[in-house]
Amino acid sequence: MQDPALANLLDQHIRTIPDYPKPGIAFRDITTLLKEGEMFATCIDTLKQRYQSLHIEKIAGIEARGFILGAALAYALNVGFVPIRKQGKLPAKTLRQTYELEYGSDCVEAHVDAVAKNERVVLIDDLIATGGTAIASTQLLTELGAEIVECAFLVNLSSLGGQEKLKSAGYEVFCLCDLKD
Amino acid sequence: MQDPALANLLDQHIRTIPDYPKPGIAFRDITTLLKEGEMFATCIDTLKQRYQSLHIEKIAGIEARGFILGAALAYALNVGFVPIRKQGKLPAKTLRQTYELEYGSDCVEAHVDAVAKNERVVLIDDLIATGGTAIASTQLLTELGAEIVECAFLVNLSSLGGQEKLKSAGYEVFCLCDLKD
Repeated sequence: MQDPALANLLDQHIRTIPDYPKPGIAFRDITTLLKEGEMFATCIDTLKQRYQSLHIEKIAGIEARGFILGAALAYALNVGFVPIRKQGKLPAKTLRQTYELEYGSDCVEAHVDAVAKNERVVLIDDLIATGGTAIASTQLLTELGAEIVECAFLVNLSSLGGQEKLKSAGYEVFCLCDLKD
Repeated sequence: MQDPALANLLDQHIRTIPDYPKPGIAFRDITTLLKEGEMFATCIDTLKQRYQSLHIEKIAGIEARGFILGAALAYALNVGFVPIRKQGKLPAKTLRQTYELEYGSDCVEAHVDAVAKNERVVLIDDLIATGGTAIASTQLLTELGAEIVECAFLVNLSSLGGQEKLKSAGYEVFCLCDLKD
C-alpha cells in the first residue's frame, strides 16, 4: 500500500536533527518537506486519493503538526477539520483523555461537539512513534461517537511500535513512509 | 474587498465564548466554522482566488490556528508552508523575535532556512487582535529576506487596532470578516 518511490522521496526531504530534543534522540523534522510546495502537495494528493471514495466526513488533526497535514487534507476532500489539542487550549466544553508517558502523563482534548455520532473520521498526525498520543486521540474520538476509518501518518518510526499498538487496538493505519528510530 | 455576504456567514459560524480565557474577554472560537467542510472550503477558496495570480511562493502560518488556514491555503496554491512557532518548538536553527504583551513578553521563531531571499510570502493567522504576534512575525520573515505580499486573517477584531498597526508598519492586510471586540 505504501508507495516505495514516494517513501524514498519523503525520506530525502525530511531533515534529521541529532540529539533533539535530548541526547540520543534523532528528531525527524518535516518542515524541510512542508516548505517544498510540490512535495507537500504530493503527500496531500496521495492521502486525498486514498480517502476520496470512502465517504469521509471529518479530518481530525493532532496538535500541532497534525493541523498542517489534516487541514490541507480536509480542504482537499471538502470536509470539515477538527483539532485535537493539548490541555487547556480549546475554549468550549471538552472531553479529555489522559495517557502515560515514560515519565508522568499527558492528555489530549476535543470539543464535545467536534464530531457527530457515527461520523466517519480520519485521524492524522505527522509522525507515529510509541503511539501514546494517537491511541488517546482514537479513544477521545470514539467516546465522542466517531467512526474512525483510519489513522494516517506521514512518518512511521517503525522501531517504536506505535503502528502495531494502534492496529492491535483495532484501527486501520496508513503511513506514507517508514523510518528507523 | 471584503465580501459582506461571506463576512456575515462567517460571523454566524464563529462561536463566541464569554469570559474566556478570562472574565470580560469574548473569545471567538473558529472550530465551529472549521468543522463545516463547506464553510472551511469557502474561506480557503476565497483566499486562493485572491492570491493565485500574485506569484506567491510560500504561506507562513502562525502557531497554532494559523497552521490550519495556512496549510490548506498552501495546498490550494500548490506552494510550500512555513510554520511560525512559539519558543523552543522548532528543532533546527531559528531566528527569534520578541514582542511585548500587556504583562511581560512573548516570542515567535522561524527556522533560518524557512524562506529564501526575496521569496513572496503571505502571512496568515486565524485572527488579528492587537497585532503583537503578527507584527513580530512580519519582522521575523522580513529579517529572513522574505517579501511579504500580504497578511491575511479570518477575523479582524476591529476595535483592538491590530490591522491599523500592521498597515502603519507598511503591510497590506486582508481580513475575511470584522468583528467587534
